[in-house]
Amino acid sequence: MSSISGEKLKISVFGQSHSDAIGVVMDGLPAGESINVPELRRFMARRAPGRAVYSTQRKEADEFEILSGLLSSEEDGSTVVSCGAPVCAVIRNRDQRSRDYEELKRVPRPGHADFTAEIRYRGFQDVRGGGHFSGRLTAPLCFAGGAAKQLLEKRGIYIGAHIESIGGISEKRYDPLGLTREELLSASGRDFPVNDRETGERMKALIEEARMDCDSVGGIIECAVLGLPAGLGDPMFDGLENRLAKAIFGIPAVKGLEFGEGFGAASMRGSEHNDPYRMREDGSIGFESNHAGGILGGISTGMPVVFRLAVKPTPSIGKPQDSVDLMDRINRELSVKGRHDPCIVPRAVPVAEAVTALVIYDMLLCDGGS
Amino acid sequence: MSSISGEKLKISVFGQSHSDAIGVVMDGLPAGESINVPELRRFMARRAPGRAVYSTQRKEADEFEILSGLLSSEEDGSTVVSCGAPVCAVIRNRDQRSRDYEELKRVPRPGHADFTAEIRYRGFQDVRGGGHFSGRLTAPLCFAGGAAKQLLEKRGIYIGAHIESIGGISEKRYDPLGLTREELLSASGRDFPVNDRETGERMKALIEEARMDCDSVGGIIECAVLGLPAGLGDPMFDGLENRLAKAIFGIPAVKGLEFGEGFGAASMRGSEHNDPYRMREDGSIGFESNHAGGILGGISTGMPVVFRLAVKPTPSIGKPQDSVDLMDRINRELSVKGRHDPCIVPRAVPVAEAVTALVIYDMLLCDGGS
Amino acid sequence: MSSISGEKLKISVFGQSHSDAIGVVMDGLPAGESINVPELRRFMARRAPGRAVYSTQRKEADEFEILSGLLSSEEDGSTVVSCGAPVCAVIRNRDQRSRDYEELKRVPRPGHADFTAEIRYRGFQDVRGGGHFSGRLTAPLCFAGGAAKQLLEKRGIYIGAHIESIGGISEKRYDPLGLTREELLSASGRDFPVNDRETGERMKALIEEARMDCDSVGGIIECAVLGLPAGLGDPMFDGLENRLAKAIFGIPAVKGLEFGEGFGAASMRGSEHNDPYRMREDGSIGFESNHAGGILGGISTGMPVVFRLAVKPTPSIGKPQDSVDLMDRINRELSVKGRHDPCIVPRAVPVAEAVTALVIYDMLLCDGGS
Amino acid sequence: MSSISGEKLKISVFGQSHSDAIGVVMDGLPAGESINVPELRRFMARRAPGRAVYSTQRKEADEFEILSGLLSSEEDGSTVVSCGAPVCAVIRNRDQRSRDYEELKRVPRPGHADFTAEIRYRGFQDVRGGGHFSGRLTAPLCFAGGAAKQLLEKRGIYIGAHIESIGGISEKRYDPLGLTREELLSASGRDFPVNDRETGERMKALIEEARMDCDSVGGIIECAVLGLPAGLGDPMFDGLENRLAKAIFGIPAVKGLEFGEGFGAASMRGSEHNDPYRMREDGSIGFESNHAGGILGGISTGMPVVFRLAVKPTPSIGKPQDSVDLMDRINRELSVKGRHDPCIVPRAVPVAEAVTALVIYDMLLCDGGS
Repeated sequence: MSSISGEKLKISVFGQSHSDAIGVVMDGLPAGESINVPELRRFMARRAPGRAVYSTQRKEADEFEILSGLLSSEEDGSTVVSCGAPVCAVIRNRDQRSRDYEELKRVPRPGHADFTAEIRYRGFQDVRGGGHFSGRLTAPLCFAGGAAKQLLEKRGIYIGAHIESIGGISEKRYDPLGLTREELLSASGRDFPVNDRETGERMKALIEEARMDCDSVGGIIECAVLGLPAGLGDPMFDGLENRLAKAIFGIPAVKGLEFGEGFGAASMRGSEHNDPYRMREDGSIGFESNHAGGILGGISTGMPVVFRLAVKPTPSIGKPQDSVDLMDRINRELSVKGRHDPCIVPRAVPVAEAVTALVIYDMLLCDGGS
Repeated sequence: MSSISGEKLKISVFGQSHSDAIGVVMDGLPAGESINVPELRRFMARRAPGRAVYSTQRKEADEFEILSGLLSSEEDGSTVVSCGAPVCAVIRNRDQRSRDYEELKRVPRPGHADFTAEIRYRGFQDVRGGGHFSGRLTAPLCFAGGAAKQLLEKRGIYIGAHIESIGGISEKRYDPLGLTREELLSASGRDFPVNDRETGERMKALIEEARMDCDSVGGIIECAVLGLPAGLGDPMFDGLENRLAKAIFGIPAVKGLEFGEGFGAASMRGSEHNDPYRMREDGSIGFESNHAGGILGGISTGMPVVFRLAVKPTPSIGKPQDSVDLMDRINRELSVKGRHDPCIVPRAVPVAEAVTALVIYDMLLCDGGS
Repeated sequence: MSSISGEKLKISVFGQSHSDAIGVVMDGLPAGESINVPELRRFMARRAPGRAVYSTQRKEADEFEILSGLLSSEEDGSTVVSCGAPVCAVIRNRDQRSRDYEELKRVPRPGHADFTAEIRYRGFQDVRGGGHFSGRLTAPLCFAGGAAKQLLEKRGIYIGAHIESIGGISEKRYDPLGLTREELLSASGRDFPVNDRETGERMKALIEEARMDCDSVGGIIECAVLGLPAGLGDPMFDGLENRLAKAIFGIPAVKGLEFGEGFGAASMRGSEHNDPYRMREDGSIGFESNHAGGILGGISTGMPVVFRLAVKPTPSIGKPQDSVDLMDRINRELSVKGRHDPCIVPRAVPVAEAVTALVIYDMLLCDGGS
Repeated sequence: MSSISGEKLKISVFGQSHSDAIGVVMDGLPAGESINVPELRRFMARRAPGRAVYSTQRKEADEFEILSGLLSSEEDGSTVVSCGAPVCAVIRNRDQRSRDYEELKRVPRPGHADFTAEIRYRGFQDVRGGGHFSGRLTAPLCFAGGAAKQLLEKRGIYIGAHIESIGGISEKRYDPLGLTREELLSASGRDFPVNDRETGERMKALIEEARMDCDSVGGIIECAVLGLPAGLGDPMFDGLENRLAKAIFGIPAVKGLEFGEGFGAASMRGSEHNDPYRMREDGSIGFESNHAGGILGGISTGMPVVFRLAVKPTPSIGKPQDSVDLMDRINRELSVKGRHDPCIVPRAVPVAEAVTALVIYDMLLCDGGS
């Protein structure tokens, strides 16, 4: 098992849904980086459960405690500064209801890692709440990624995301050529992160409908990075696409990822897909389009980096499903109890931003840009 | 730049399109593994250029020389056996025509890495034929991956791929539940790797049409792994999806990747997407569907692993395109000369298989299954 | 900064001498491994401060809290079992006296990392108690290594160490050929880990003498591994010597490392140093000597692995020393206050065992021997 | 097996003593670095065999062919410039005499890796000439390290080494405080790399004596780095000592390594060993001594980095030795035939410099100092 990611800034995520605590170690954060704590809390609140109908009713404040690596630079602790030593932050698990999961020891939930974990860990895995596979582990990711996001913003690099679609209801994609910082950050800041509120209402209605059916829905998240200078990334196995892909498939429930036109490029012609160059008035070189999503040969072009991730419907549903009893070796019907999100997509939006921030920040460090 | 991949079996790819040679080092191949050389040559021939209208007319036999790590176990050299030392194989570049690329030093080809490489390597990059970014570098990948593929087959693990679509013309996807070895391997073995020949003819016609227009087309490749035991992979950042993604985005021109239902999952409900469990007659546990593409929580379920990759249209096209002169800082029109594939998809099929084989074989080694 | 070590079992150490807590994440511990908690506590007590004259008077119980990755398998918590998820253990810092270190912000202690940390972290480092460079960080190493040591013992592999010399007073080295488990473990178990008690008393007297002089002394630790099967390790950069060396130089104050005859080999002849082979009565192959320290070509021979590490005298001494004021840029005299070990060697013995256990256990995992 | 080393500049060494070729891939060499080819040849000639009585009579010109990654910047090929793509250089093996090693398949040479390789690779290893364990593999290390050495010199960082002792005959160590560039480089440039020629003659006589006895002798190499700025390195597992140690134990026959006073520190007092600080006249901070060997807390102090490595006597000796027949399972006497160095130390001097250069250059890259 490796829950470690990154080259120079290495993130080590630990914890299970119902362990005493979950947390993250950030090894390699350069000294002297200051982080605004209330801003980090606000970022983490975007992911925290318990706020809306589409979210699990489990109440967790996701309050973090910083154990090491960050020193308070102000009396009130509102700003902390890295000292070069590894940062460790922990989040206590408080509102566990382990009894909800008793049955899961024997009856794996379809669509979950229960069955594969049983084989991989030979029955020793922590089944309570999905253990280390729980979406709850994205909270420490948001701590680390939220910090990285702040540090990127000081370098003029902004990351945002929005819900591109839920259950087939879509809103407009980002304009990959002319995307502004306002457009990028507006959805990110919202409780339900869409650009078009009306479409957002229809998405919410669909989620509510699924919830009433004891069912769930999936969706697509679009993410963009603005301000990334040209020339970042390496060819072959360490390009922007490779590194983002490795990390983003670490977000639970992600089953697809595409950059720029992505799968759409498959039905385009080269003359359509190629992004022509043009001299700008200021003597710099510009692009006439950005079908490449800001990446050519694994290296940033200087245009907005744009990609989309497909999120499968939450596997935990109340609806009866076919399963088996691993002990008695018989068929069983299962209705997943407990508190679950009918749609994980809205809460996955900040997670996508966090993971993206971690990758981009790490690549900048690798590039000597600390 | 990192052209190294893998944990226990580390692949280091080197060379440029027009350097003296290209090649690969395989570090960590266990001793005692035997490889059939003619079979490896046949596999590499599937990728080699110069065979059909859809392929560049550059002639390269892709003949490899094994410099180290493999000892002949038979007089005729038809079988070689690993001795535990790193394997190095080189392929000489013979049919270079560097003069075709003179102009590219100043005028970057849209859709290529010319521009990003210029910035990343500050003008020191080898521009001839795209340098290290050339699709030609997939030849050593096929050497290493073709070897891994043979070793996996000895363990009952089979990898195949087919063209799912070209320029919007699609053939049927694999049946993720009932895929047989014959179905898997039939397309792989063909000159034009499709399952349905009639659709294949229409795809070929579309490619020919693009070629006549001095243009190119993209496509989608579907790849599957049969026989992979359940329980392989790790959660978070080192699961099957993460590792496959990191490697597969190393194939030039890949812009999207999805596992199982992939982007389709975004518009499904949990009750549709979840794969129910059922007891099989033999007392083992089976699945009633395989929307997950054989992976749950980053770990193999024992069902066929199925994924699709989007390949953008070849950026090198004869059609005039807008570009700029990097030296004179003026707009320029560019018609890419030289010999280029109007559609790279057919030749990318064995590359996808090769990269998949390398990842799976490496994961088995990590799992102790050497 | 990288405080991460290991290939399959990755250890991430965090904390500073005076941060809220110090701790360790163990990522990659296989599921189903059981650890005896009281035994682990006893092992950690061997390193803990405050027990003897040669030790700092700082009182720290080094009580650890397990946050994740280990589940209690018994009511009383005396046995915990790994669940496959990363293990995190933290140790709270309680008895800090930060005021002792106020002056160190400006006046670097000779022999310490104060000066190099100031440059490396541009003044942002945590100077209190040496920050992340403090010997206190060996406590989480002992948690992780103590656990690994238990797991190795279940596989018949035993690790022990003794003080070979302090300030020039030496006791007999291990017999590398005939070392028994009793001999190996006897010193390890003692409060002052020597084999010969009389020599130990003389060493203690020397330490006490140094303490009375407000000075300190160094020493040599000899460490051995019994029961390691032949064939473990890789040539070149990943052999037993490479991996042990990389980790052991991570123990603060270690300045030298030698395997087998080590530096003594430099004045030997090949005919003396080579270890001849002989058939044993049971038909197995034995060695007539073990000058190689159980390692040939980076690979274990099956004989005891024996090595020695040189530990410099504790740099913190009460005696006045020449230093400078980094702010006023003038010469200054410095007497290090605070509570410091006049000799760190006795407490470094379990640390050497811990680090060795981590390396060996990791190599076994890499070898597929989980 | 991992013959890969480095973080940003990754070196992958391949080949066996009697394979078609040996070589190295350098992945991550920044673009635009120029290397003087005749100077690199001269550096490699220092290691090449066949020049003196103390060297094997195997004649190998060690002529390298550059396959990729370096472009000629001058007509005569005397200067090559990195293009950012991985560099591959190969050296053909020409003067193999494989028949000398026939017997070694069954009778392992004491002190060699024959026996451990047999177990590790289950009989599949290439036994000819020691296979991948052969000292011959240091030739590609010298190619890569020689290149790194040149690049460091352009940054004002110089690496040199000398024979400190052979078979107990010693010459004066470097002055770690006042070492000048002339002193550092003078021995390096000599055919027999000592500072004191008279002592060198006595060493040579001792080697000749061993050779006449069909025996061999070991020695100690002292290596120093001048001009390294303060602040390079990381604490715990990635400091200068850790990284140098991991790489240097990759040189065949090295059995010990010490930094600064090293093992001598064990019998010193803190007040002697600590290096006091003093203000220099120019307002910078200096040291009054350099017992630390230029490293505190794993980080460079700005003083000369000084370390010594113990080299065991060449295991291949003509003298009859006890061994066993692995097939017949009986005792056997063995006289190693073939051409072997009675003392490997002189030829290991440039290898130590090469490996040191690779580590230091890589650390500078990691530090953003490309």
